[in-house]
Amino acid sequence: MATLADIGLAAAINILSALIFLLLFAILRIQPFNDRVYFPKWYLKGVRSSPLNSGAFASKIVNFDFRAYIRFLNWMPAALKMPEPELIDHAGLDSAVYLRIYLIGLKIFVPIALLSWSVLVPVNWTSDGLQLAKLRNVTSSNIDKLSISNVERGSDRFWAHLVMAYAFTFWTCYVLIREYEKIAAMRLSFLQSEKRRADQFTVLVRNVPPESDETISENVQHFFLVNHPDHYLTHQVVYNANELAKLVADRQKMENWFDYYHLKYTRNKEQRPRVKLGFLGLWGKKVDAMDHYTAEIEKLNEQIMEERVRVKKDDKNVMPAAFVSFKTRWGAAVCAQTQQTKNPTEWLTEWAPEAREVFWPNLAMPYVSLTIRRFLMHVSFFFLTFFFIIPIAFVQSLASIEGIQKKASFLNPIIEKKFMKSLIQGFLPGIVLKLFLIFLPAILMIMSKFEGFVSISSLERRAAFRYYIFNLVNVFLGSIITGSAFEQLDSFLKQSANDIPRTVGVAIPIKATFFITYIMVDGWAGVAGEILRLKPLVIFHLKNFFLVKTEKDREEAMDPGQIDFYATEPRIQLYFLLGLVYAPVTPVLLPFIIFFFGFAYLIFRHQIINVYNQEYESAAAFWPDVHGRIISALIISQILLLGLMSTKGKVQSTPFLLVLAILTFVFHRFCKGRYESAFVINPLQEAMIKDTLERAREPNMNLKGFLQNAYIHPVFKDEEFEDDQFDEGLTEDSDDEDCVVVPTKRHRPRRKTVASSNVSGGLSQSLPYNRFDTDKGKPV
Amino acid sequence: MATLADIGLAAAINILSALIFLLLFAILRIQPFNDRVYFPKWYLKGVRSSPLNSGAFASKIVNFDFRAYIRFLNWMPAALKMPEPELIDHAGLDSAVYLRIYLIGLKIFVPIALLSWSVLVPVNWTSDGLQLAKLRNVTSSNIDKLSISNVERGSDRFWAHLVMAYAFTFWTCYVLIREYEKIAAMRLSFLQSEKRRADQFTVLVRNVPPESDETISENVQHFFLVNHPDHYLTHQVVYNANELAKLVADRQKMENWFDYYHLKYTRNKEQRPRVKLGFLGLWGKKVDAMDHYTAEIEKLNEQIMEERVRVKKDDKNVMPAAFVSFKTRWGAAVCAQTQQTKNPTEWLTEWAPEAREVFWPNLAMPYVSLTIRRFLMHVSFFFLTFFFIIPIAFVQSLASIEGIQKKASFLNPIIEKKFMKSLIQGFLPGIVLKLFLIFLPAILMIMSKFEGFVSISSLERRAAFRYYIFNLVNVFLGSIITGSAFEQLDSFLKQSANDIPRTVGVAIPIKATFFITYIMVDGWAGVAGEILRLKPLVIFHLKNFFLVKTEKDREEAMDPGQIDFYATEPRIQLYFLLGLVYAPVTPVLLPFIIFFFGFAYLIFRHQIINVYNQEYESAAAFWPDVHGRIISALIISQILLLGLMSTKGKVQSTPFLLVLAILTFVFHRFCKGRYESAFVINPLQEAMIKDTLERAREPNMNLKGFLQNAYIHPVFKDEEFEDDQFDEGLTEDSDDEDCVVVPTKRHRPRRKTVASSNVSGGLSQSLPYNRFDTDKGKPV
Repeated sequence: MATLADIGLAAAINILSALIFLLLFAILRIQPFNDRVYFPKWYLKGVRSSPLNSGAFASKIVNFDFRAYIRFLNWMPAALKMPEPELIDHAGLDSAVYLRIYLIGLKIFVPIALLSWSVLVPVNWTSDGLQLAKLRNVTSSNIDKLSISNVERGSDRFWAHLVMAYAFTFWTCYVLIREYEKIAAMRLSFLQSEKRRADQFTVLVRNVPPESDETISENVQHFFLVNHPDHYLTHQVVYNANELAKLVADRQKMENWFDYYHLKYTRNKEQRPRVKLGFLGLWGKKVDAMDHYTAEIEKLNEQIMEERVRVKKDDKNVMPAAFVSFKTRWGAAVCAQTQQTKNPTEWLTEWAPEAREVFWPNLAMPYVSLTIRRFLMHVSFFFLTFFFIIPIAFVQSLASIEGIQKKASFLNPIIEKKFMKSLIQGFLPGIVLKLFLIFLPAILMIMSKFEGFVSISSLERRAAFRYYIFNLVNVFLGSIITGSAFEQLDSFLKQSANDIPRTVGVAIPIKATFFITYIMVDGWAGVAGEILRLKPLVIFHLKNFFLVKTEKDREEAMDPGQIDFYATEPRIQLYFLLGLVYAPVTPVLLPFIIFFFGFAYLIFRHQIINVYNQEYESAAAFWPDVHGRIISALIISQILLLGLMSTKGKVQSTPFLLVLAILTFVFHRFCKGRYESAFVINPLQEAMIKDTLERAREPNMNLKGFLQNAYIHPVFKDEEFEDDQFDEGLTEDSDDEDCVVVPTKRHRPRRKTVASSNVSGGLSQSLPYNRFDTDKGKPV
Repeated sequence: MATLADIGLAAAINILSALIFLLLFAILRIQPFNDRVYFPKWYLKGVRSSPLNSGAFASKIVNFDFRAYIRFLNWMPAALKMPEPELIDHAGLDSAVYLRIYLIGLKIFVPIALLSWSVLVPVNWTSDGLQLAKLRNVTSSNIDKLSISNVERGSDRFWAHLVMAYAFTFWTCYVLIREYEKIAAMRLSFLQSEKRRADQFTVLVRNVPPESDETISENVQHFFLVNHPDHYLTHQVVYNANELAKLVADRQKMENWFDYYHLKYTRNKEQRPRVKLGFLGLWGKKVDAMDHYTAEIEKLNEQIMEERVRVKKDDKNVMPAAFVSFKTRWGAAVCAQTQQTKNPTEWLTEWAPEAREVFWPNLAMPYVSLTIRRFLMHVSFFFLTFFFIIPIAFVQSLASIEGIQKKASFLNPIIEKKFMKSLIQGFLPGIVLKLFLIFLPAILMIMSKFEGFVSISSLERRAAFRYYIFNLVNVFLGSIITGSAFEQLDSFLKQSANDIPRTVGVAIPIKATFFITYIMVDGWAGVAGEILRLKPLVIFHLKNFFLVKTEKDREEAMDPGQIDFYATEPRIQLYFLLGLVYAPVTPVLLPFIIFFFGFAYLIFRHQIINVYNQEYESAAAFWPDVHGRIISALIISQILLLGLMSTKGKVQSTPFLLVLAILTFVFHRFCKGRYESAFVINPLQEAMIKDTLERAREPNMNLKGFLQNAYIHPVFKDEEFEDDQFDEGLTEDSDDEDCVVVPTKRHRPRRKTVASSNVSGGLSQSLPYNRFDTDKGKPV
């Protein structure tokens, strides 16, 4: 068991490594040649231009101003300076609300820490349960003296812990409800203050039933003309353009290769680069590279043109879904919230997601298939959570010395060297597990896609939920009770409902030091590593060297990245869980949690201001999930305290903690009823107010023109812009005259976004949107 | 353990008692003086008039036509004759669908019984597990030879039971989905075929927020004029008339007394009846009864007039709720399905229930109070279910000899007689429990009212759900595992999740004979007792003697009764549960269940055609609950079979049965998604079709006039009809000209309906409805 000194040492090491990351960051960020890595957001906003264009050559690349090095932490106050409304304006509501999750951590845990240090630590410290235990040869550390372990069995002092559990719960709930209220208000005012957006007028209709004598488009039009006669305006059908999207993606790849060889040629004009045609360019006939790729691009261009015509011509490529637009927001709100026909599996209507956010391939799934897919994914996730260790163990066994020797005996000479042996034995199994855990969010995201959600935000929310459950089972419970999740499940099934909280609860205080170390490694050093952006840094410079010809290319090479909600939020939730579970048990853990929340808040605020660029804006639609998960952490903490207390000879506390858990659940239901709808539904009154205002301001606006092409599959967008010779700025301005757009340099974005991963290469974000229309490029 | 002969004897006794009931019924029903007890529905329909008015005096009262006695079972084919569409027309959709529950019982269990008798009975019979057990001195009966108990431990024959469990599940699901589809279609076509009804155009708005400078009525009007400008037509505020309703009820009571004494006087003109004024008429000053009650009625009339003026004048009596009517059904459908403002706890809209169905006292509950009430009722119900035995045991202890001797020693001389002693000891405890069980549905109904539902159908649905759970825990589980529900709960908490199904499952076959007896007593004899209508028979004749002066009074004395969904449906569900649980275990039980369903179907069909008169029509809104409960019975049966099998040494079957249970649940989710909305939501397309048709048929109809007074608190209805001197037929005709109403004799109904139990004496059903407007009187 770790002593205070051990923890201190670990803390020192982690703080040191965090400091090293920060120092490195401080040095790298002021180098002009890294400017696009550390300030991409400002480039995208158009208010920062490349420092490489001006000044002396050397100072363009390296910063010689030594004063800059002295103020190496000056980004911290700068990160805090921007006020929240401006932050919302700058980075969107999603990012601003994401930051509030860290703030909530501080708001919850700072008072709880103060309270528990002033009440529980003295109570624990002055007990002598461990003294008595020591007589029976049980070892313990100083940390345990501060924890609940030090209170004697059956002591009346446990009432203090019980009262504190109530206090912590009430405080947490108070913070949560205040925050829910605030964020609901922020969301509504954000939506209300927004300029005209296509999705405000548009409803996504799915499962349009087939009609023998009408095309889908006609069918949609007739249906809405009949059933929403006063409000229907226009509609856009959805084409199955997955094939086309693939071709466009191919062309993009060819263009990249062409760029690469072209750059090579311009640097060395003497020799035209040549390329082999075979597999991966390793063998085959050698041809002139530039000519080859020009021909390939030509060919693809032709194919794309053909495919485009084919898709648009053939009715079979129209999916039974459509984006239906209405004359007023009121009409759209009505249509989205009502059931259209007596068959609830046909003509399903819902709010259209932002066009950027639409996950096109899922638009055509029929109802029955959705039910089955959902069920299949639930089952798969269950197995993934409880049995993931089995394939991992199998791969690990392959990756062992013996496994390699058996399967690939030609490697024997290398393996038998002592160094290699220890490397393989020591690292490979760990790396296999780590790789799995790194790819887990992506796997969960693929599962969500298979499940058939149509907007990226809902895909991410589902993946986040599953990641949270996975963490809860495998990281939290898995660390407390050793053994695989499956073994736990098995033992839980064999235990009585009474015994489960006891089994877990009794192990809680013992694992405190482990979790403190976990927080320091994963939380402190991990977050500090985030600010360094090592991967984007390397990739940017590689691209810069191999592909970049023009300023436009450099802009494309820049990868601002974004907060991947589905991968990061569940990890924050783990800290909430640890904090709430350990607050009444081992208060020593709380300062570590608080430091994490504070530090992460600082870092992510800096990143959001200077780096990240969100792909879409869901106006904080994820908040109910965040709230629900904190509540569930609270209830878990109460149940575990109940188990712990009853093993400590204080069974009398059980009803009190049970009541507390029930009250917490009732609180959750109340919050859900009171606030959740703000994140799901657009109320009619709000819609009416906006409609009325707009009608007064612009009585003659051409709404139909505005909505006509808002929901076109990204690969068709391409078409228009090609016609316009990429003069997108102009396209946009003509669409939408009444707004001031920050003048940015437009480009053809080629991004591997989650949205367009199946349609990659499309121009998915060149929409007539106002406030989120800050394009950015993430290279393929 | 009961043998086949024992069961046969019990069956004979129960069949005999059922036959006696039927015979008594056959004799009583053809006596003219009972005509209003056994054919009230036809009187209410106006197609049958009192036989007492014509013919010789004696034959008016007793039937001397002996041929009538010979055909004493001829009601049975008559009950089956009426085709379903006519039945819907005659008794409403609720009743017709209620009958289908019994039919489903037959549809499910007849094929299951055939299958299990042809497969499982031979398999069980030819095994010799009991033979082996007998060697170890375990006694068994012939019935056990036919049940799963006879199969040897670990035998492969259990696979037959497993396959049968799958077959039973698939068959049940098939019947259920067919039925759900059929009933959803019936409901939609019923709603669609209905004539114009106020609730089609009306939405109930609750939680109207207070506005300082507007009355609630103005506030409602402004809000809907702004937010539904094209559709809003009119609205009616809801007055808090509970006080007034009390006065009206008092007057009704006085009138009853006046009638009683007046009748007494007319029979014996020599002496004017006198009455004592003191408590319960036992002491005090003696006055002339008729004068006294005339004066009382006068006084109450004045008070009522004053109260009426006061209520309508004072804004404080307006509750923050209103019935808002729209110009079209489409407009109402939109408003009911959408959220109005950003605060989801204000301006709550929902479909207005039928005016007959409104539970007025609950209309003004604020959102927070609703949440708390719901929570409180959940907790109370939990305690009621698991701890109800405690107060019962307490009362039972009081009702014991010693208890009575202690508390009321003056009764000692009576009690100490031997006969009284044995009576008290033998019967009182049982009677206390029986009384509680009789009043349980009423108690659950009161709980639902407290919870704040606004329509009687939803009150009943909630009460039914709770009654079902109570039966499940206390009757089903309570009979299988002896011991109180609380002891069960305690032991379940201490058992592992694995062991619970085993504990219950292993006891299932043993209890088969008990449940067979239960089915015969509760199902066969109980249902046969229903047709006799003993209580209404006695009450009708008492009233007839003491109160009836005119034909009108006699009509009021008639009590058609109705199907109390909340009290009867959960009991039917118990038979589904028993049937499904025992189908793979003890197939012998199935014929008894089938006989119950068939017999009950016959009896209730007769009663629905000739007797019952439903208070309101919910168009089978209860169906999703019925469906859900059959599904849950199915899942329970699978889990218990799982437990039983694993104690029988066939743990291999566990995954198969687990998968089956999961599949059943998925099936339930699918049905819910596919059909449930038909019972909750009015789709826009349907509304639009009706609107369009109506507009074409009657372009100039005065909808506002039609809707103006549709939702007036019943006590205010009174007012109008008094002005019209009870010429209600006229009132109605002027309201609603385009419909043909069955010409009935109208009367002032004075009924203690669930709706008006707080406002009793009101004229709750004199509404401008068409098809359900067949009034009926249930005396107070």
